[in-house]
Amino acid sequence: MTQLNPPTPELVAKLTAIVGEAHAFTDASDQAPYLTEWREKYVGRTPLVLRPGSAAEISEILKLANEARVGVVPQGGNTGLVGGQIPFESGEEIVISTERLNRVRHVDAAGGYMLVEAGVTLADVQNAAEEAGALFPLSLASEGSCRIGGNLASNAGGVQVLAFGNTRDLTLGVEVVLADGRIFEGLRALKKDNTGYDLKHLFVGSEGTLGIITAAVLKLFPRPVETATAFVAVRDLDAMLELFRGARAVAGTNLTAFEFMSGWCLDIVTSHVPGLRRPLEGDAPWYVLLEISSGSADGAAEAMMEGALSEAFESGAISDAAIAASIDHAQQLWRLREDLSEAQKFEGGSIKHDISVPVAAIPEFVTRAGEVVEAVCAGARPVVFGHFGDGNVHYNVTQPAAMEKAAYLAQWEEMNDAVHALVADMDGSISAEHGIGRMKREALARFRSETELDMMRAVKAALDPNGILNPGKVL
Amino acid sequence: MTQLNPPTPELVAKLTAIVGEAHAFTDASDQAPYLTEWREKYVGRTPLVLRPGSAAEISEILKLANEARVGVVPQGGNTGLVGGQIPFESGEEIVISTERLNRVRHVDAAGGYMLVEAGVTLADVQNAAEEAGALFPLSLASEGSCRIGGNLASNAGGVQVLAFGNTRDLTLGVEVVLADGRIFEGLRALKKDNTGYDLKHLFVGSEGTLGIITAAVLKLFPRPVETATAFVAVRDLDAMLELFRGARAVAGTNLTAFEFMSGWCLDIVTSHVPGLRRPLEGDAPWYVLLEISSGSADGAAEAMMEGALSEAFESGAISDAAIAASIDHAQQLWRLREDLSEAQKFEGGSIKHDISVPVAAIPEFVTRAGEVVEAVCAGARPVVFGHFGDGNVHYNVTQPAAMEKAAYLAQWEEMNDAVHALVADMDGSISAEHGIGRMKREALARFRSETELDMMRAVKAALDPNGILNPGKVL
Repeated sequence: MTQLNPPTPELVAKLTAIVGEAHAFTDASDQAPYLTEWREKYVGRTPLVLRPGSAAEISEILKLANEARVGVVPQGGNTGLVGGQIPFESGEEIVISTERLNRVRHVDAAGGYMLVEAGVTLADVQNAAEEAGALFPLSLASEGSCRIGGNLASNAGGVQVLAFGNTRDLTLGVEVVLADGRIFEGLRALKKDNTGYDLKHLFVGSEGTLGIITAAVLKLFPRPVETATAFVAVRDLDAMLELFRGARAVAGTNLTAFEFMSGWCLDIVTSHVPGLRRPLEGDAPWYVLLEISSGSADGAAEAMMEGALSEAFESGAISDAAIAASIDHAQQLWRLREDLSEAQKFEGGSIKHDISVPVAAIPEFVTRAGEVVEAVCAGARPVVFGHFGDGNVHYNVTQPAAMEKAAYLAQWEEMNDAVHALVADMDGSISAEHGIGRMKREALARFRSETELDMMRAVKAALDPNGILNPGKVL
Repeated sequence: MTQLNPPTPELVAKLTAIVGEAHAFTDASDQAPYLTEWREKYVGRTPLVLRPGSAAEISEILKLANEARVGVVPQGGNTGLVGGQIPFESGEEIVISTERLNRVRHVDAAGGYMLVEAGVTLADVQNAAEEAGALFPLSLASEGSCRIGGNLASNAGGVQVLAFGNTRDLTLGVEVVLADGRIFEGLRALKKDNTGYDLKHLFVGSEGTLGIITAAVLKLFPRPVETATAFVAVRDLDAMLELFRGARAVAGTNLTAFEFMSGWCLDIVTSHVPGLRRPLEGDAPWYVLLEISSGSADGAAEAMMEGALSEAFESGAISDAAIAASIDHAQQLWRLREDLSEAQKFEGGSIKHDISVPVAAIPEFVTRAGEVVEAVCAGARPVVFGHFGDGNVHYNVTQPAAMEKAAYLAQWEEMNDAVHALVADMDGSISAEHGIGRMKREALARFRSETELDMMRAVKAALDPNGILNPGKVL
């Protein structure tokens, strides 16, 4: 890989001229929001934060950066969880924020697509779809501040993946500025296009290391007319698998969410988040939040929900269920799931994992992971929840109640390694939805084969021969 | 690109030793089935057809071929429509058939996936899924003979794309032998995996030019419990768009097929195919075959169909509809669509296109394409049909009734160029599902931007630096 340089004062001046002084930050106070991620796990330095207003400006910036061999770090809403959007502490890389590329250019609900710029927040994308009477289904906790370009770059997941897929599956076309400043104009709105290699799939999920996504054509779906939501007490994880299979058989792709959490998760979220109450009497070892949606106003969603649950009641797989009686009630049930990440903080330090295994292997994973965790740190408390239907477990491990937080968090690497080794043994993924960024780069190198790493390096070298795009991330 | 060589007699002997003499064909009669595609548009030559029995054997073959700079042409069921699977007439390339890699290794209906080798026919994949109580939805005319490796390499489409996507969308993981013989072991069964670049999407749709797919993990779906099928007479293409939108709003992803054909298509198929009758009285300008599927046995599919149709009747968009009263009846209706390609032959020479545009642009495309065709060859008769809901039109143009066939077919290039120019003008695709292969290589070079072609060439050079994999195809 070519040696990269810090930008010279002359280059800083040229880059500043491209975007205008109002949008080129060199002061620490202006730069601060772009240099710290929300958990303060990574704090970077940079000589220059640029806020370009168009793909053309980004093209000019990259052309100069590439010629000068200067590293650039693309940033969307700065909500990434693996440090991919933060420059290194060396202070030699330029940050390019996409936040001014914030126009929804076109919404065609009937045609089933919309064209948005990379800096539009996910919430604004959702709202623009809704105003046009359509659904853009991507939904995740940070949707108010994350930007769609970052969602694309990280192939974001979230709570609607079960029926609609990851961001990748919601993408018809992309516009990308390449490392040398050329623009890949791939804003096609086609459902089918077999003309050569599918280049857009290279950029989705590449975390800004192969190009900077500046706009995208996204798929739209009909809005559901009726939605049935239930919070269900489940006997054990095998019973949960049985419930999942039954619900999927009854509802097919109308099963739009199947989110799970352990009994302790429910304890945490209802103890620490004001206004949240336990929706069911008694204690169960596991809970599931089910959502079934329907395009017709004939009670089909509710009927499917009753079908799925009654079968599971009869078999003893589930012991109790609260079916939402109103939209408000449904939102209350959803908050039990959505506020869980926040609620964990009250129990002390947490070592996080974002893993996936085949759905049917979740029971085995949870059992074996419990043993692995106990061996690393006796008394550590797994906070087990996630997107059951996708095989995606946010296996976060909270410190033992009596332990000192810093001492516990010092075991982060060791804990990750042990859990990831189990995941590898089970043919799973060590990053189901958060990506690699900076945090999991070492792990990627250990858990993917040399052949796969070589292929990735070859693709990187082919598209970014000087290695200026988000250096030191992913690979 | 490196200069390629014909294989030496020594290399032929070594390659023969890898697979055994029984599976290495040098005689013309043994080779014949591998050298002619079914329409006899391309007839190739080769010194050697190899039928390896494992990925390990393919690995050994490619290692030697790469060292000797000998071109190889991978072949599945030899049903491709663009000549991608046939070696050139020069006779310098080796053919590698995947047909002996024909085991279904594992079917996990509950887990929602199956693991198959590349040489399994699509029909056998479907059957293995069905025996396990699951659905593998890919379905197309050649399913009895095409092989899943070829479906993956060409990202096959078919009649179930509307609800389930192309082959790409049905693929969880792949095993691929690379140009230098290394094996990419990517047989993961994960719904979510954000660990680095998504390499599988590079190989799906790359038509054997980046690696040889030897096995795949495919998604399985619940089988539909009820299916409603209707054949509908439609006023015009704007009305068809209205019907499509209404049906999608009512049925959402339960709308599993929305196939269209012109009135003349119905005339052709019912005149020339024995046993097929017109399902409706009178003549309409356009017809649609709708299918709505449901996972529940409560009449929901039929109710959704009635909902979709009654709205369209009221608005005057449709004038008549036959709803299948039995499975036999539904199959009869499907044959009107499926036998259409065959029926065209009775009307003389046909110049074919496989294009896509955004769904909402189909009416405009059909109008403008009619003018384009008339300008190239007055009296030529468009056979307009295809996957309306995907924006994919098989715009085949049959010769004027009185013209000589050879004289008509001599206009193939000119006709293609004119129609493809219109498609490009409408931001469409010149190959929606058949791929590029050999037939559309020149067109690809004209209709994709220089930046896109450069990116494809860079990826090709990164993964196959000597250019031995399916040389002269795609790029």
